[in-house]
This record gives sequence, structure tokens and C-alpha cells, in this order.
Amino acid sequence: MTRVFVTYRVRCAPSDIAARAQGIAVEQSVEMPLAAVMQPRIGAHIVGRVEDIAAHESGGFAVRVSLAAETLGPEAGQLLNMVFGNTSMHDDVTLEDVELPTEILAAFGGPRHGIEGLRAQCGAGPRALSCTALKPQGQSVEELAALAGRMAAGGLDFIKDDHGIADQAYSPFAERVPAIVKAIAVARRATGIATQYVPSVTGDWERMRAQIALAREEGVKTVMIPPMVVGMPNFHAAVRAFPGMAFLGHPSMTGGARIAPALMFGKLFRLFGVDAPIFVNYGGRFAWPAAMCRRVADAARAPWGPIKPAVPVPAGGMTTERVPEMLDFYGRDTMLLIGGALLLARENVTRATADFVARVRDHVHR
Amino acid sequence: MTRVFVTYRVRCAPSDIAARAQGIAVEQSVEMPLAAVMQPRIGAHIVGRVEDIAAHESGGFAVRVSLAAETLGPEAGQLLNMVFGNTSMHDDVTLEDVELPTEILAAFGGPRHGIEGLRAQCGAGPRALSCTALKPQGQSVEELAALAGRMAAGGLDFIKDDHGIADQAYSPFAERVPAIVKAIAVARRATGIATQYVPSVTGDWERMRAQIALAREEGVKTVMIPPMVVGMPNFHAAVRAFPGMAFLGHPSMTGGARIAPALMFGKLFRLFGVDAPIFVNYGGRFAWPAAMCRRVADAARAPWGPIKPAVPVPAGGMTTERVPEMLDFYGRDTMLLIGGALLLARENVTRATADFVARVRDHVHR
Repeated sequence: MTRVFVTYRVRCAPSDIAARAQGIAVEQSVEMPLAAVMQPRIGAHIVGRVEDIAAHESGGFAVRVSLAAETLGPEAGQLLNMVFGNTSMHDDVTLEDVELPTEILAAFGGPRHGIEGLRAQCGAGPRALSCTALKPQGQSVEELAALAGRMAAGGLDFIKDDHGIADQAYSPFAERVPAIVKAIAVARRATGIATQYVPSVTGDWERMRAQIALAREEGVKTVMIPPMVVGMPNFHAAVRAFPGMAFLGHPSMTGGARIAPALMFGKLFRLFGVDAPIFVNYGGRFAWPAAMCRRVADAARAPWGPIKPAVPVPAGGMTTERVPEMLDFYGRDTMLLIGGALLLARENVTRATADFVARVRDHVHR
Repeated sequence: MTRVFVTYRVRCAPSDIAARAQGIAVEQSVEMPLAAVMQPRIGAHIVGRVEDIAAHESGGFAVRVSLAAETLGPEAGQLLNMVFGNTSMHDDVTLEDVELPTEILAAFGGPRHGIEGLRAQCGAGPRALSCTALKPQGQSVEELAALAGRMAAGGLDFIKDDHGIADQAYSPFAERVPAIVKAIAVARRATGIATQYVPSVTGDWERMRAQIALAREEGVKTVMIPPMVVGMPNFHAAVRAFPGMAFLGHPSMTGGARIAPALMFGKLFRLFGVDAPIFVNYGGRFAWPAAMCRRVADAARAPWGPIKPAVPVPAGGMTTERVPEMLDFYGRDTMLLIGGALLLARENVTRATADFVARVRDHVHR
């Protein structure tokens, strides 16, 4: 029967690792003493197996376990449940990798659009994409729309809501989206650039579905969702229900330490349909090392059976001055997201935005 | 304007804590440089405020931040997003507590049933409740139903699915639930005890809704959901849509370290409607100290405005021998969950179950 291979990093004493590895294999499958398993076929097929134990390059051990693919569904929540559910409660274990058979990859389907779809939305050629965030929350619909217009006048590819912007009384979704679409449309006629507005969508599934449908009616082609806030199963439901829509994935509630970022953003987000995963860039206000960011970007774009590449979106305290460095580091199949640093220009936000856009557009890749 | 108070534990150098605290307050509100905030009212009301910095009893600092209540929704996902979303990506920060105004508590509503509702379901007086788990997954519907019947014959209050049991081909939800309900009904007539079957419900919202509706038609009064797998917003949607149903909350994907367990199980699960949060007992196969378990149980049952108490469900490698110790520790407003240890009795599982039930029922609280 088909197996799924899951790699964990376990930090424990060498004398404990064999028992710990076996414990994880049991916890993530039958979750009971093996002596109590009555059916031989369950012992042979359903119980997780320790396939390998090796030293992990960053310390501790890499434990590779195989699970029966049929235990996973395939359903996004059940996948998380079986690969990390209870083991997530062991502080000394992180989830490092998940290897899935082609039929499960195909069942989830991955990004429906990927970087080529996002480039096509804004008429970009084979270059990196630019994106900013509308901030701060607390502004009225009119203020947000005016800001969107001023930023769109700088010729951006994408303008997304800040992830704190939801459906608050001071800027209700149903009023905000049409107003911002309209403000950006005015700027588009002036710049000739098909700047795309990306509203932030949150809440339970019925609220999300209504918000995405409303956005689609307004001509929106991409929305942003935080999969770990709304739940992976419901994020994937949105991808299935709106195949024409592209999805930015926001990292809110991903935590930092227990699921390896390359797996979270480059594989799990992507598997469930994120076209463009936002993650934390090195050198910003989060403490990720450059090598970790490289692994995220590589994973997001790596060949992966039938799954389209996603476009990595490094973000978090970036500045325009760093654009050449970041594009040299990440390459052209990247979307750069700069928010607060553009807003620091205050009344000169259009000029600051145009400068950011020009640096992205005109960068000469080495 | 109404404020929400959020406490973080930050492990950093004393010389850094003032800046780190201010950074969290900004990150969880406007997420941009304050110099770029143009509207004075946003600076005055929407920007998070550092209210207090103190030494944390377990090391590092306790940072208390206030946020504008209107930024939260109130909506379960947006609440998580605003109190911990991006800050979850700082490895040295844990979320310790959230204090909410009464109107937000009332809007979420908390458990609809609580311990008295669960006791009423199985005709129990003011005593602790007993629960077991059907394991392992991989069994057929017939095998699971037969096992449920043998365990129900021991007189349990609740029999829940193992959390790995979802809607797999080997035991589809729509076939499993009626078969197990029927098997338990036979045992109920023999024991005279109203043993309740608690199916495991997972997936996206439409799948969850269909599963809960099917269970309700079969007479099921309680289901189990892992809120951090399906997403808090969708768990809360289930609570709102099925007010007559009680909910066990499973800890899958809660991680262990970044949201304090007393907050996760005693407040967040409870706020969104979990009647009985399952969590990790001390002395089992997870490494929680007894004091942490005490805090979880205390938080789950503490008076909290209009919110009903929830009944704590310590679990994870428990044995019947420990029942007296656990009931002395947790008191009578508790549900004890023993799974694998009963199954170790194999063909004598009914006798082992009856022994567990008797120890819970007959315990003399000191």
C-alpha cells in the first residue's frame, strides 16, 4: 500500500532516540500500545514505521517515518492531523518534511495560477513582481481608497490589504473592496499598468466565500488568506471553489519554530493552493537567517510532480534600498513586498512607490 | 474606546525588552513605522500600547499590551490574527493571556452546555465523567462498532472516536456513525447507562456541517473537533450552527510551547465553544508538569463573565490505576479519558472498562 514519508527533527539524548522515533510513528498512526492492536493487517499497514534515523545537520536527529497514505484522506486537515497533530505537543520535535505520492499531490492540486498566472494578471513579462500593503488598519474606506490610488499611481503590480484589515466597522469589506478597486482603476488609466488589488479575506468559510464572491464581482483576480488562521481545510475549500482566483498566503499564526518554514511555505501552503506565499525575509524585523529564506524560496519553486511552482514573497520590514540585493538573492521568479517603508514617505508615497517599482522592473539579473 | 489586554512572555536581554515590547504592540496593531501613521486618531486609538513590563515568574518578561477591541471583529480568526498572528513568528515570544471585555465574551458565547449539559446527556449526578477512545484507525465499521459495544458494556459515559479517525475509505463517516450508535444502543439497554457516542468531525466547513447534521440525525449529542486543525473560525461556526450539540475539543496541532496551555485550552477553546477541552495530563506520554495541568483545569472552570465553565479532560497515556490520584488532583468537575490502556486488556476490554468506570463513579472526593 502507498506510504507517505514524514521527517521530524528530534532533539533528545542519543540513548533515547530509538524509542522516541518509534513513539512518533505510533502516535501519528494508531496512537495506542502496539500490544493492544488486535488485527495483524493494522500492525502491518496502518501502524507508522520508522524508516530511518540520522544525525540532523543542525543538531539532534532526523527521523523519517512512513505512514499509510489512506489514513490521510486526502484532506488538508487530516493531513496535518496525521503528520503532526499530537506530536506538535512535544516541544523538542519539529516537522521538517512531508513526501507525498503523486496521486495525493494531484488530489490537492497546488496553485491554480502560479507565477505565470500572476504575471499575466498585471501584464508583466518575465520579471520580478512588486507588491505593497495598505496600512494602517483603522482608516476609513475613503482613506484606504485614496491611499490605494496614490500607491497605484506609482505603477505597482499588486496592492494588498494589510493582514490586520478584515471586516471591521471602520472599513467594512463590502464597502472597502469596490471603493479601492475604483480608486486603482483611475490610476491604471493614468499609468497604463494593470495594478491588481488583493483584498484580505478572513473568517469562517461562509464569510470567506461571500467575501471572495463579492471581490470577484468587482473584478478582483487575487485575494489574500492566512491559511493557519482560517484553517488549512477551509483555505483549500476556497481554492477549490474559486479556481479562477489566485491566492496570496499570509503567514499569520504559522509560528516560527515547530514546522520548518521551507515545508510550511514551500510545500504545505503550495500543496493546498497558495500561488504566492508571503514569508519573513532575512535582515528585516524577524530573525530568520538568509539560508532559511533560501530554502523557502527554493522549495516554493522546485519541480514537484504535477504541482505548479509558487512565487515566493519575502517581506517584513523591507526597504527600497535593498531591492537589488534581494533580487540578486531570490532571482526574477519572486514578488517583493514593501509596505511600511513606502508609507514613511507620507505625502510623497507615490514617488517612493514609483522608485520601488522602477528598481524592481529595471533590475538587471546577473 | 474598549481595549483588549494581551500578555506575552518575551525571553530577551533586559536592555532589549522596552523596544521588543513596543515592537509587539505595533506589530499586532498597525504593523508599520509609527512615523508613517498620518491620522492622529489612529495613533491614539488603534496603535497597540505597552501597558506593563514585569519579570515573568518562569524567566524573561511578561509584557502586557492593550489593543483596540474594534480591531478584533469579534471573529475568532481575527482575534487570533490580532493577538498573536505575526508575533507567533518570533521564537522567543509566547502568548500567555488574553483579557476580553464582556461584550466580546458574550458575542463568542463560550460553551453552550458545559459540564452540567454533559452530565445530563448521560444521566450522571455531580460526579466526574468517564470517557474512552475507539482505536486504532484502520478497523472496519463492523470492527469499530463491535469494539464500541464491548466498551459500552462496561458502562462508560462517553465513547469518542480516536482523533485519527476521519472519513477514510476503511470506515466512512456515514456508515460508521449509525453502526456505532446502534451497537452502543444495545449495550445501553443492558447497562441502563446512557453511554454517549462522540464521533470525530474534521475537514472543511461544508464537510463538517454535513457530518454534524448526519450525527444529529442518528441521535448523537456530542461531537469531537480539533479546532486548530479545522481553524478556530470554522470551529466557532459549528458551535453557532449547532447550538444543541456539545463539543469535545481535541488538542491536535496546538503545538506545545507558543500559546500557554491554560490560555489555549482554558480560555480560547472555551471562548469559541468547547464544552470539554482534551489536554495532556502530567505523568503520561507528553512532558507537561502537573502545575501546568492544574492551570489548564483551573482556567477551564474559572468564573468568566457570561461564559459557562468547561470540563477539563486530561488524557494521553493514562491508566486506570491512576484514577484516584487524578480525581484527587482535578476534583469532580472533570472528565477522565483512558484509551489505549483499556484496549491492552484485548478480549477482556469490557471488564477493564467496567473497572475504570467503577473507579470514577465510586471515588470518594476528599
